Amino acid sequence: MKNIYASIITVGDELLIGQTIDTNSAWIAQQLNQFGILIKHRIAVADLALDIINAINFECANSDLIIITGGLGPTNDDITKQTLCDYFQDTLVMNETVLAHNTLLFAKRNRPMIEANIAQAMVPSTCTVLYNNFGTAPGMLFEKEKKIFISLPGVPLEMKSILQDYGFDFVKQFFTTANVQHYSLSTAGRGESFIAVTLQNFEASLPSNIKLAYLPKLGTLTLRLTGLDVSTVEIENYFHQLQTLVLPYCYANEDISLPEAVYKLLLEKNKTWCTAESCTGGSIADAITNIKGSSSVFKGSIIAYSNEVKINVLGVAAHLIERHTATSELVAIEMASQVLKICKTDYSISITGNLEKTEQEEAFAWIAVCNKDSHKSIKVPLPYDRIKNKELAVNVALNFLRMFILE
Amino acid sequence: MKNIYASIITVGDELLIGQTIDTNSAWIAQQLNQFGILIKHRIAVADLALDIINAINFECANSDLIIITGGLGPTNDDITKQTLCDYFQDTLVMNETVLAHNTLLFAKRNRPMIEANIAQAMVPSTCTVLYNNFGTAPGMLFEKEKKIFISLPGVPLEMKSILQDYGFDFVKQFFTTANVQHYSLSTAGRGESFIAVTLQNFEASLPSNIKLAYLPKLGTLTLRLTGLDVSTVEIENYFHQLQTLVLPYCYANEDISLPEAVYKLLLEKNKTWCTAESCTGGSIADAITNIKGSSSVFKGSIIAYSNEVKINVLGVAAHLIERHTATSELVAIEMASQVLKICKTDYSISITGNLEKTEQEEAFAWIAVCNKDSHKSIKVPLPYDRIKNKELAVNVALNFLRMFILE
Repeated sequence: MKNIYASIITVGDELLIGQTIDTNSAWIAQQLNQFGILIKHRIAVADLALDIINAINFECANSDLIIITGGLGPTNDDITKQTLCDYFQDTLVMNETVLAHNTLLFAKRNRPMIEANIAQAMVPSTCTVLYNNFGTAPGMLFEKEKKIFISLPGVPLEMKSILQDYGFDFVKQFFTTANVQHYSLSTAGRGESFIAVTLQNFEASLPSNIKLAYLPKLGTLTLRLTGLDVSTVEIENYFHQLQTLVLPYCYANEDISLPEAVYKLLLEKNKTWCTAESCTGGSIADAITNIKGSSSVFKGSIIAYSNEVKINVLGVAAHLIERHTATSELVAIEMASQVLKICKTDYSISITGNLEKTEQEEAFAWIAVCNKDSHKSIKVPLPYDRIKNKELAVNVALNFLRMFILE
Repeated sequence: MKNIYASIITVGDELLIGQTIDTNSAWIAQQLNQFGILIKHRIAVADLALDIINAINFECANSDLIIITGGLGPTNDDITKQTLCDYFQDTLVMNETVLAHNTLLFAKRNRPMIEANIAQAMVPSTCTVLYNNFGTAPGMLFEKEKKIFISLPGVPLEMKSILQDYGFDFVKQFFTTANVQHYSLSTAGRGESFIAVTLQNFEASLPSNIKLAYLPKLGTLTLRLTGLDVSTVEIENYFHQLQTLVLPYCYANEDISLPEAVYKLLLEKNKTWCTAESCTGGSIADAITNIKGSSSVFKGSIIAYSNEVKINVLGVAAHLIERHTATSELVAIEMASQVLKICKTDYSISITGNLEKTEQEEAFAWIAVCNKDSHKSIKVPLPYDRIKNKELAVNVALNFLRMFILE
């Protein structure tokens, strides 16, 4: 089967001056990959007609599907729609459905509709309109010489909803793609190179239409098997082999974050937890409370960024800090044990350390976990910069708690 | 003066499957803009020789400077160096300086150097080597027909240091660019459209070689004046006008984040602060502790994600929660007042609310700030999703504290 290729053209000066980081392209690529369409190129161009047309012509030579985002706003610098209209030798006509939707939107927001806003409801006469439920610029789909061109607003929410509600269905019907199956699992505690050695023979045994991908983040590694036109039985067989090989490090048989896995585990066990954070300054609590529903298991935290708070609020003995330092194992254990009592939870995590290396030593953190009967502690070297070290420490701490609960 | 254009080509399959979000391009664009080089295109291609060469040829038609990142690792799928060597009809030779550097690096890390690692020290004979102080793949600079081509590793730290230490100097000497001056200030509390109306006449009065850019984030807006070949006196005159016009909303006469501005203000006043967070779950504390040195002003936080912690740890009266709900103004004020006493600081912020809308009401937060003598409170509507609402609430809270301190 012939591969289907897509190119993504992002239009907008803000992408070229470095003001905006392009997260749209990564999302579109992930979605298209899910149903077997490969990305050939991603290209960012300015709000200039010639640049947009040059990019479209360049991508037409490579790809079957051209997705263009951005440049559909109501202001003068937004020229994507007119450029596409010229490119397809078409004329703009009023789309009454879009106009009615936009009129309603303006009425709801209690804002007057000026001429430029009305013009947003005009579309090239030959395009298929992909309705925008969250904004005023509709998506537009064109067909030409067995290729599809989709123009979308650059606002992530609008772009995503247009593709999910209308665009992807059209694409799936139009192209015959390979049957793609993904099986993912998430690991923590071992780096990419360690896991790669563990999986060397397994990887060599894979047939050519099943690929293994390593998707590393700080402190976690997702492994993904992708099968092209394979039977479910066959790929599930390989996935079970993979699960067995990385069993000690696997925290979920799906691609989820560690905060989510810890949340699910505690929910399942009907247990609560809390944290006492020094060096991470609240990022463990922040990570867990990013998850909707986390309040059913996570009760709170004491961020003891100063010794006074460690002593007066957490109740760590001052002599312990004096004798062993605030970043010692014993202080970490005491922090975990105290916060467990203060917040009255089933489990707790504590963390104390230095996020940045000093003249004397490399950056590190002591992490402790406990319940009412026992505790465990671990020292973690932190080899990155301040911000990345925080992120790594959060994941190591969450995995440490996860393993402690499962013991 | 002729504009100098640059194109950025990022090489790597991980950028096309959506695994990695490209932050390198935005950084490079910002840096080049600083000294008057405009970005024509950014393009992402796979680790395929033909795709890399097609992209280079396409970009040569547009740009004077071609920056290529990625594909310089030691594994088989990294082919950028060989591709460039073929493109420039060159041959690879051993660079002894790079070899010595890499040998030392492997010795330090206590790892054996295999053949693929030694081969990383080989470079095309005609290129200028841009040394990599943080890794094993050197940068390479080629000149051809008055254009410059720079190949860099994709690892952000290595890419940045090579450009800062060697690449940018070369670029600045090679091209005659306009004299570019940037003057930035940071505002909070008013949206882009409000500020745009305020600045309508000012913007219209700017000469053609001074541009005003709006750089919005959630809850903050940076304004930047960029002058091309203008005198410092002239642009400073316009900058003073700008400062006067947005004075009530300006929190810094430079482009810095609100956490940094709050940190600097408290440091300057030699005051301390703490937080009591409910719905933001530690993100205010997380944001402030991302700043090196923040421990000198920030003492800690109580994350009261449950009512039990609000009552038992913060000491909020249970009847207050029962009568007014946990997300009420009075509870926010009580949280701020209690945490101030518990953490013994000069100032405190508290926040409580709902990050997601319910059937009954839109998402919102009550924020309170206090010192030993007085307090203030404010209700903030939160119109985005859970994660963005957290980010917005953090900035609104920090700006509220900043204004309270300055009153």
